[in-house]
Amino acid sequence: MTKDWDKIIIGIDPGTNVMGYGILGIKRGKPQCIALGVIKLNRLEDHYMRLRRIYDRVRALVEQYLPDEMAIEAPFFGKNVQSMLKLGRAQGVAMAAALSREVPITEYEPRKIKMAITGNGAASKEQVREMLRRILSIPHERLDEEVLDATDALGAALCHFYESQRPTLPKGPKSWKEFIAKNPDRLA
Amino acid sequence: MTKDWDKIIIGIDPGTNVMGYGILGIKRGKPQCIALGVIKLNRLEDHYMRLRRIYDRVRALVEQYLPDEMAIEAPFFGKNVQSMLKLGRAQGVAMAAALSREVPITEYEPRKIKMAITGNGAASKEQVREMLRRILSIPHERLDEEVLDATDALGAALCHFYESQRPTLPKGPKSWKEFIAKNPDRLA
Repeated sequence: MTKDWDKIIIGIDPGTNVMGYGILGIKRGKPQCIALGVIKLNRLEDHYMRLRRIYDRVRALVEQYLPDEMAIEAPFFGKNVQSMLKLGRAQGVAMAAALSREVPITEYEPRKIKMAITGNGAASKEQVREMLRRILSIPHERLDEEVLDATDALGAALCHFYESQRPTLPKGPKSWKEFIAKNPDRLA
Repeated sequence: MTKDWDKIIIGIDPGTNVMGYGILGIKRGKPQCIALGVIKLNRLEDHYMRLRRIYDRVRALVEQYLPDEMAIEAPFFGKNVQSMLKLGRAQGVAMAAALSREVPITEYEPRKIKMAITGNGAASKEQVREMLRRILSIPHERLDEEVLDATDALGAALCHFYESQRPTLPKGPKSWKEFIAKNPDRLA
């Protein structure tokens, strides 16, 4: 692959049954979908085999696409401690694959991703997919039912791109009290 | 290091503040402590820096000692989902370092480790340390306060050694019903 992109972002949605990924290329400030896919883990009986598969695939993706940054969809709350431990492990191995190649990671909550893509933090997976299709001009057949689980990963990557585009305002004083405390000489 | 051991087991106790490790060498059925130590993570502010440190150190240990197996201390229940997610990530990156080198992993609950070492599943850390000192003939100065957090990791490795030594009984039928179903010709 010729690396003619200004920046490449890899989006990951690590789950214990399915892991989704999406690769976004940025050129002259315009994002484009380079690749997307899902890694089915439910056929693998063994928990370690699943973790191994996640690590191997993410590492292979990092080596193939040489992303500059990783965005990860990370729910911060779950049903129970058991499932959160498993999810943490899946996230951990995916992160290790990026960290071992010095790729910086940023996490986004599902609500934040939905908000960034659709303007609605409670949007459905289908709504997010439709918006991704339009924003990234993805043909219908490339983002079909089979890769629906890649939607969140691609969404995370696009959300990360939007965040990096946002102008950061210089930090001013938060209140008059703070302003006065910092500028005693400017009191009349 | 000359690899004159019949088997090498690496024990890992991954935490989000401190990670402990212990390397056990087996020679003619006798376990010996090759190395033990702790990796302090609380000085690192960033969560990813901590995960990266765990991954790098475990990977370096795996490359240095070439262990045949990994034993990991893994609590299955925690205070809340938040801390379990973090713990899962720490475990995940440590596991990735082993899985990337094809080192098989076995998990042991803290209770099981304490039981295997001291005969008491509710033993204190100090009691476990004392038993480890005696069983592995570790000099006092090598297992002092500073490496107390390596105790659980070394305990996990020793527990794994004991488990592998246990004779496994051939699996017979679990009930008469099953026996009859499998051996219809032996019905009188």
